[in-house]
Amino acid sequence: MEFSEYFPIWDQLTPGQRETLSASLVSRAVKKGAVLHGGGMDCTGLLLVKSGQLRALILSKEGREVTLYRLFDRDLCLFSASCMMRSIQFDVTITAEKDTELWIIPAEVYKRLTEQSAAAANYTSEIMAVRFSEVMWLMEQIMWNSMDRRVAAFLLEESAIEGAARLSITHEAIANHLGTHREVVTRMLRYLQGEGMVKLSRGTVELLDEKKLAALRDA
Amino acid sequence: MEFSEYFPIWDQLTPGQRETLSASLVSRAVKKGAVLHGGGMDCTGLLLVKSGQLRALILSKEGREVTLYRLFDRDLCLFSASCMMRSIQFDVTITAEKDTELWIIPAEVYKRLTEQSAAAANYTSEIMAVRFSEVMWLMEQIMWNSMDRRVAAFLLEESAIEGAARLSITHEAIANHLGTHREVVTRMLRYLQGEGMVKLSRGTVELLDEKKLAALRDA
Repeated sequence: MEFSEYFPIWDQLTPGQRETLSASLVSRAVKKGAVLHGGGMDCTGLLLVKSGQLRALILSKEGREVTLYRLFDRDLCLFSASCMMRSIQFDVTITAEKDTELWIIPAEVYKRLTEQSAAAANYTSEIMAVRFSEVMWLMEQIMWNSMDRRVAAFLLEESAIEGAARLSITHEAIANHLGTHREVVTRMLRYLQGEGMVKLSRGTVELLDEKKLAALRDA
Repeated sequence: MEFSEYFPIWDQLTPGQRETLSASLVSRAVKKGAVLHGGGMDCTGLLLVKSGQLRALILSKEGREVTLYRLFDRDLCLFSASCMMRSIQFDVTITAEKDTELWIIPAEVYKRLTEQSAAAANYTSEIMAVRFSEVMWLMEQIMWNSMDRRVAAFLLEESAIEGAARLSITHEAIANHLGTHREVVTRMLRYLQGEGMVKLSRGTVELLDEKKLAALRDA
């Protein structure tokens, strides 16, 4: 599969724009756990995921984490190229949650493309709107939802992503996704186990009753 | 002052685009407290503030509020025209915090403009990035900051907006800005009063020591 098949507005670019873009692309394969962007790295470029899974998160000064959203096949990451837009005034860390293959588009090449092409500029707005919607969903979760519901929502989402009821994940990792402390997650998981919704064993959480978990999430 | 002086990319539009835009504008004056967008109102259009002050907020099912950001003179509100972009999947309520004069740009006119003009499309991205940054700032506040620091930050921001040390605001209103309960705000304000940072009286909060409040906010 070629870049052109992953970049939805390819057909709306001129031959010259396609050529410039193609010539600037960098192909990369990264291992699970790799940090692709964050902290000191100023302008990594835009990341287009070919296969694998990336995680966008924010970090507190004390090193606490919260997951903002995930990026899957065909997803484009703008915020690893925040130098492209002076209005982006926040820092996002991007890590690989699975072994991932991706293309890097240099920020200045992409910026020039959006200046020339309304299609590229509108595509950029659409992607920003998608991420904005994901962050607003998270904001509503944090503001209005109790932690038991957030843990239920997280387990169901993980299970859907992995296509498995048995998740290899530590309480610490769940806490880092949700921006809370391990102890809080352990307490919630024990409550869910007591209610027959999950089964806990070392390093794994097994979903026993997805219906009941969904009912809790949507309560 | 004319619309052309409030719309920063006016000079980059064609005469035809300017004409279409001008002909579609609706001028409106709303009173403090008016709800401009939210809930049932599907697609109010883009709002460009001429003078006054708007507030963007989200509401929980139970009617709790949290302020996302404010809009001042020359600010453009995109999310009152979310029909313009199918990727915007969240509901924002827009209210007038002061008597406000504004222009409404119909969503379909603006959408057509962004399809024709890369300048308009990039301007839209920039505005979305500004709002995104404000929401990310809020997210970090909510995730990592304790409520006393958030109250201090809010009072300092209000005081800067109003250009006054004495604020006419109820504890209930502060709670609605911060997405918490009145009792929590009252407790925090009493703590700040005990520390000599503010003076409370019926319906007002007076900032006595901005330096100390700023130190608390930035702690």
